[in-house]
Amino acid sequence: MTASAAKGRLIGVGTGPGDPELLTVKAVRALAEADVIAHFSKRGANGNARTITGAHFRDGVIELPLVYPVTIEIDKDHDDYRSAITGFYEESAQAVAAHLDQGRTVAILSEGDPLFYGSYMHLHVRLSHLYPTEVIPGVTAMSGCWSQTGVPIVQGDDVLSVLPGTMSEFELTRRLADADAAVIMKVGRNLSKIRKALEATGKLDRALYVERGTMPNTQHMRLVDKTDDIAPYFAIVLVPGWAGKPGADK
Amino acid sequence: MTASAAKGRLIGVGTGPGDPELLTVKAVRALAEADVIAHFSKRGANGNARTITGAHFRDGVIELPLVYPVTIEIDKDHDDYRSAITGFYEESAQAVAAHLDQGRTVAILSEGDPLFYGSYMHLHVRLSHLYPTEVIPGVTAMSGCWSQTGVPIVQGDDVLSVLPGTMSEFELTRRLADADAAVIMKVGRNLSKIRKALEATGKLDRALYVERGTMPNTQHMRLVDKTDDIAPYFAIVLVPGWAGKPGADK
Repeated sequence: MTASAAKGRLIGVGTGPGDPELLTVKAVRALAEADVIAHFSKRGANGNARTITGAHFRDGVIELPLVYPVTIEIDKDHDDYRSAITGFYEESAQAVAAHLDQGRTVAILSEGDPLFYGSYMHLHVRLSHLYPTEVIPGVTAMSGCWSQTGVPIVQGDDVLSVLPGTMSEFELTRRLADADAAVIMKVGRNLSKIRKALEATGKLDRALYVERGTMPNTQHMRLVDKTDDIAPYFAIVLVPGWAGKPGADK
Repeated sequence: MTASAAKGRLIGVGTGPGDPELLTVKAVRALAEADVIAHFSKRGANGNARTITGAHFRDGVIELPLVYPVTIEIDKDHDDYRSAITGFYEESAQAVAAHLDQGRTVAILSEGDPLFYGSYMHLHVRLSHLYPTEVIPGVTAMSGCWSQTGVPIVQGDDVLSVLPGTMSEFELTRRLADADAAVIMKVGRNLSKIRKALEATGKLDRALYVERGTMPNTQHMRLVDKTDDIAPYFAIVLVPGWAGKPGADK
């Protein structure tokens, strides 16, 4: 019998907000060197991360698509959802581990930054204590959005609150009332509620709506100028701090 | 008389958390194409951003160092500080504008992400309405820190609070008590106060201290294992959300 192969390396690769040029040099190198590239996607469609990075894969790379069994925009507290998604992460981790056990370097793509609301971290917590692991940070979607709109989000002693739009209207209102600057993630069908919370806290006027930040089909506008409440799940609402305050010091 | 030159372009370039490989592909291209590269620094020392990016400047580029007249770690509400720093930003904007008026493309380096607590934005608000302007987002220092430690910072419906360590102990304690996950910036001489606020809110045990994240001389440890309160200004304290909670869903 031969000795078993050395364990492979796990790399969580942040792929940035959408513009392929917003990949880091380190991410490009990791993709070009990986034996296996795993990426999350919905059934029947490549994920954004795959689209952003495809040009950098080396010839003969093994692709490992990890296809979500359910939509991610359903009630996360529903039992069926929880068991389906937990099973999916377990199976995905096993599929990645099988390659690592063969000594292969596996890069797992993660839109934005891997440890900031990314699916990658469900595999990270299952595998990083068992295999040599590196996480390559990425430009977050929110950085992409505020850079595109050119609005300084926080300066000096501003507090930034990052709030999932999925929270209750009461909780969203309470937290917005206490925020200098805020980023509201996971907008989707929560937009009407988000509007109410912004209005209640006097922050609607300075809120910006950004859809598909840094991608070719992106659009942004003041939220008060958006005439409907239809938004993709990954749209973002920005409430600038410093620059949004009248009479702010420069 | 000849017609005046077309206006140049202003580019705010995020240079990432410290590791030169964490520059984006877009930033590398912008640096290679710029006629003028401006960078903030303290007297007698190149700034980190200059060190991170120097390899990408093209031959013959004009460098424009913008040297802070005062330390940035003094009381920002002090009148002398305010007038010195405001004058400095005004003069810096004029120096940049002089190049833009000659039709030159000017890249201004910004550590981390330009619109996220960056000095760049003081020039952005003075110039971006007058000249064609682009902001290239960067990987933030906080992303660099949590990637290096491998600790998932937020997941699912976690709220992230980004808190300057400069705020009062009362305010820091109040905000930490209400946070799922937190990043405390500008640690420096505020570390003893930060410890007290974390202890009062039961979050000291899971707090991580990170110094010079992603740089060659970086170090990180559990904050409870740090035996002194000496820290550089740009050190960061992380309070992980999801992954820091016992019994958290995977």
